[in-house]
Amino acid sequence: MGSYEELAGRLGEFAAAREWERFHTPKNLAMALAGEAGELVAELQWLTDEEIRAALAEGPLRDRLADEAADVLLYLVRLCSVCDIDLVAAAHAKIARNERRYPVELARGNARKHTELRRLPDSSDGGEATAD
Amino acid sequence: MGSYEELAGRLGEFAAAREWERFHTPKNLAMALAGEAGELVAELQWLTDEEIRAALAEGPLRDRLADEAADVLLYLVRLCSVCDIDLVAAAHAKIARNERRYPVELARGNARKHTELRRLPDSSDGGEATAD
Amino acid sequence: MGSYEELAGRLGEFAAAREWERFHTPKNLAMALAGEAGELVAELQWLTDEEIRAALAEGPLRDRLADEAADVLLYLVRLCSVCDIDLVAAAHAKIARNERRYPVELARGNARKHTELRRLPDSSDGGEATAD
Amino acid sequence: MGSYEELAGRLGEFAAAREWERFHTPKNLAMALAGEAGELVAELQWLTDEEIRAALAEGPLRDRLADEAADVLLYLVRLCSVCDIDLVAAAHAKIARNERRYPVELARGNARKHTELRRLPDSSDGGEATAD
Repeated sequence: MGSYEELAGRLGEFAAAREWERFHTPKNLAMALAGEAGELVAELQWLTDEEIRAALAEGPLRDRLADEAADVLLYLVRLCSVCDIDLVAAAHAKIARNERRYPVELARGNARKHTELRRLPDSSDGGEATAD
Repeated sequence: MGSYEELAGRLGEFAAAREWERFHTPKNLAMALAGEAGELVAELQWLTDEEIRAALAEGPLRDRLADEAADVLLYLVRLCSVCDIDLVAAAHAKIARNERRYPVELARGNARKHTELRRLPDSSDGGEATAD
Repeated sequence: MGSYEELAGRLGEFAAAREWERFHTPKNLAMALAGEAGELVAELQWLTDEEIRAALAEGPLRDRLADEAADVLLYLVRLCSVCDIDLVAAAHAKIARNERRYPVELARGNARKHTELRRLPDSSDGGEATAD
Repeated sequence: MGSYEELAGRLGEFAAAREWERFHTPKNLAMALAGEAGELVAELQWLTDEEIRAALAEGPLRDRLADEAADVLLYLVRLCSVCDIDLVAAAHAKIARNERRYPVELARGNARKHTELRRLPDSSDGGEATAD
């Protein structure tokens, strides 16, 4: 149904056919990614949460967001390809780390950063999640 | 080996267990995504292409980039979840559109935007790729 | 009390003394700017408008925002210096253009983009503000 | 010749006349700033340093960069206004801090982060510049 490997392969062929590999340096792709992230955030900048909810139910906003989200993903996948990074493995590793960093009993209902969670007086955490 | 659906599901469970759904509005997640894209771009900002190539061969830079890329992906996947967007389908649709926008014979070896490709005097394009 | 020229001059001396001019290419400075913009947005990403208002009244959030805003400004001023751009003149030119693009009678109370304002049925605008 | 105070005042009047203050929350303005930073970075993403230098000499690229830089500045100034931040004072304070963080004798010719400068074996720094 469309795996990351398939996306990465299709993007690689797309670039090769157009002789665009020389443009696809890590720096350039990171810049392109930041640019697309900016376009995505710009879609939502003047809307309230309620307006976004209503607009998503209607459709056009969702289509524009999907388009921008796709652009972000494509540059992200391409960046990881040229840097030889396994993006999906990195994502799962990050979730695993976040599960240790943000134990349910400490993190529930608050958005404190993990580095601040450890300072709570009632911390019951054993301290294993100190990375980063 | 790690599908999009699996990532989205795991992130949804992670947020639910911590009662973080109320933080995960589209606006907030788009901001978080932009922040992580900024961290990723910052990893490369002072390095030349050659320095990046050498650093990627050594390892630590790749690990940091993988970590930042993972953060971008996680917020992107989560944003799409809460907006009910099929990210992988959107990505494939975008590639298909780019294949029409950037025909190989016009786009080969140059980085002109598709809106400028059409103005080339030697355009042999049939003009079907006018979307956006 | 601190002019743009003074900031630009001070940053130029700072870079020259450290022999950092070779790092300060337009690309690198634009990346650094994007990175700092990401840090700024990250300060606010999980807070509601009400929480931000309360936190600003207390102080620490304002200090962090001021610090990030300063970083954005410094890279912006430096980027304009190396590109020989008169930033303040460009800013005033942009305001003047926006005043034409967003006539008070059309724009009052809505956040429509200027390209959409023109399509309003009750537009009383003479159409002079078509640029960009 | 155009001070920041004048810019801030003009932007405040612009927003008030259009009844846009309610859109100008810190979150929304930070998002708008990130979006404009993304547009700026996008102007340079596919160009080499040499191509940028040549294009700046010709003019159009400089005009587009000036336009995007102006957008970044306008949102930055406006954000600081609504947060009651003295942007220019913050910028000078940051330069002063960077002058302490990056002593000329340690920082000359390298782009190491200040947190790494301190670890150099040949550090002759007295250690006063520890503030992040």
